[in-house]
Amino acid sequence: MDLNTERQNRLNELAHYELVVDRLKGRGVELKDIAQITYDIQKEYIDELEMSVCLEHVQKVILKREVQHAVLVGIELDVLAEKNIISEPLLSIIKKDYGLFGIDEIISLSITNVYGSIGLTNFGYIDKVKPGIVGELDNSKKGTVNTFLDDIVGAIAAAACSSIAHKYAV
Amino acid sequence: MDLNTERQNRLNELAHYELVVDRLKGRGVELKDIAQITYDIQKEYIDELEMSVCLEHVQKVILKREVQHAVLVGIELDVLAEKNIISEPLLSIIKKDYGLFGIDEIISLSITNVYGSIGLTNFGYIDKVKPGIVGELDNSKKGTVNTFLDDIVGAIAAAACSSIAHKYAV
Amino acid sequence: MDLNTERQNRLNELAHYELVVDRLKGRGVELKDIAQITYDIQKEYIDELEMSVCLEHVQKVILKREVQHAVLVGIELDVLAEKNIISEPLLSIIKKDYGLFGIDEIISLSITNVYGSIGLTNFGYIDKVKPGIVGELDNSKKGTVNTFLDDIVGAIAAAACSSIAHKYAV
Amino acid sequence: MDLNTERQNRLNELAHYELVVDRLKGRGVELKDIAQITYDIQKEYIDELEMSVCLEHVQKVILKREVQHAVLVGIELDVLAEKNIISEPLLSIIKKDYGLFGIDEIISLSITNVYGSIGLTNFGYIDKVKPGIVGELDNSKKGTVNTFLDDIVGAIAAAACSSIAHKYAV
Repeated sequence: MDLNTERQNRLNELAHYELVVDRLKGRGVELKDIAQITYDIQKEYIDELEMSVCLEHVQKVILKREVQHAVLVGIELDVLAEKNIISEPLLSIIKKDYGLFGIDEIISLSITNVYGSIGLTNFGYIDKVKPGIVGELDNSKKGTVNTFLDDIVGAIAAAACSSIAHKYAV
Repeated sequence: MDLNTERQNRLNELAHYELVVDRLKGRGVELKDIAQITYDIQKEYIDELEMSVCLEHVQKVILKREVQHAVLVGIELDVLAEKNIISEPLLSIIKKDYGLFGIDEIISLSITNVYGSIGLTNFGYIDKVKPGIVGELDNSKKGTVNTFLDDIVGAIAAAACSSIAHKYAV
Repeated sequence: MDLNTERQNRLNELAHYELVVDRLKGRGVELKDIAQITYDIQKEYIDELEMSVCLEHVQKVILKREVQHAVLVGIELDVLAEKNIISEPLLSIIKKDYGLFGIDEIISLSITNVYGSIGLTNFGYIDKVKPGIVGELDNSKKGTVNTFLDDIVGAIAAAACSSIAHKYAV
Repeated sequence: MDLNTERQNRLNELAHYELVVDRLKGRGVELKDIAQITYDIQKEYIDELEMSVCLEHVQKVILKREVQHAVLVGIELDVLAEKNIISEPLLSIIKKDYGLFGIDEIISLSITNVYGSIGLTNFGYIDKVKPGIVGELDNSKKGTVNTFLDDIVGAIAAAACSSIAHKYAV
């Protein structure tokens, strides 16, 4: 990834990129785990696709200011719920990942939106099927709260799919 | 479905309900085909779910004015594309269901939105996996254009899933 | 408002209604303040509109589960930011209501969505012009954080506008 | 605008750019008219803002594939409605710009989304206040249908506002 080129994209925010990557890592999510989901979905459409390209597009997604904001808010809410700092009834809603709670989906939408409406499909698919790291987050050990994070990770993987689809557009 | 109760819901539009159902039928889509998708997805969560309940919720979804508008616009664009009445380059984009064209997804979003953000997940899943009638629409015979309709049908099925989930909410 | 009728609407959640109203009150927002914004916007279109009708529709909006979730999350983030409990850099972003932070807008979107896409217009208008209580929240005294709340209140007022528009639909 | 740089942005589609600009022109919309709305809104925040910068960002917005698709679909529906080619009841709904019809708003949302959720506010504001060319489109002479176009033009102006805001981000 050429940082000088990325710096020119006014939707990017380089100052917080490393921090957001570290924050994801701190919650057990490596960028390559996200890239793996992107790869598994997109390889069906692009024969010559390589993991390195998927990883690069995951990085591009996370460079976007809008995406960083969604990640920071989502992880913050998960962590504060884990520490029981959030007030009731929201605390219980988040801790048990209540099925009718949709704020995690709507926040994730702000991630997929940046790459166009086609991201909706892959986001929904990943959110339902829960492949790889998304499934692990969803089945995390007792006490861990990933209500927002599993959707956010799925949205980043879906956005990277869209980003790649636009790159290979004919 | 008690029409008197439904008439009281100010988001409903009874005047166009039958017309929209007929329009769907004219494009090869029966409400029970949509209800089948809803049933297959929701039965996993609700043991006692019956097809009749799914069909009723599909009907409730189609009573919504916002949903009717999306169906009418989507089918209109498909039909006009079939007749080659739409101008280029949009005609080719719609006819070949160009992968980076997302207007079908965004219009469908207005259907799932009415039942909350949780509808996003099932919509994306259906749009990707293409179960039942959605798959049939996607593989329709040469000359038929269902670029908008397959997404719209998937969105109605997903909205009915949300509607049922809200009904069985604990 | 007939609670028995409202109880039948499966998108409603009566259990948390009073709590959400109290939470708003605790942050300085009375339902009649929200209804005033709705009234000022809709009276232009409906001559005979009365404040009591606007108040009733604001109540209907807040009965919706999806809306309650958005209010609870938004107020929680504002309050935790006020108490400096949120980690950096998100804390500073929320406290200064950073112009490029859009998570408050996207969460509010889940409120307007429930009443259809026409709510977007009034939400954007209110968010920009900041009439009445929205302006007060935006200009609150030093130390108070209403980054999410002003958008959420604007979205409730806009949703009530849509709800009324649907009721008076011809 | 450096076309070589723009060509590298994978969300851009240079092949259809001129065609989309011509299509807008054919409906009475010059890019400078859109840029004027952007300028009037953003000059409040950026002292040194110049019209040429606004025009450049309007061009950048229209380079986006997602935006081009929205413009093409919207204008197509307006034109077909003018020619009475669309079937009823959709024809009447579009021709009279029915207040509860929200498909024009949802399609426009796909334009503002590309630049993040902050675009919602300006889009709603423009759609309500109808400054400059948007007002002219809304008050076009009898027989002309601009139901989709006025929203689309407002969304492009709002997206250009967001694009500029990101450029001047501190």
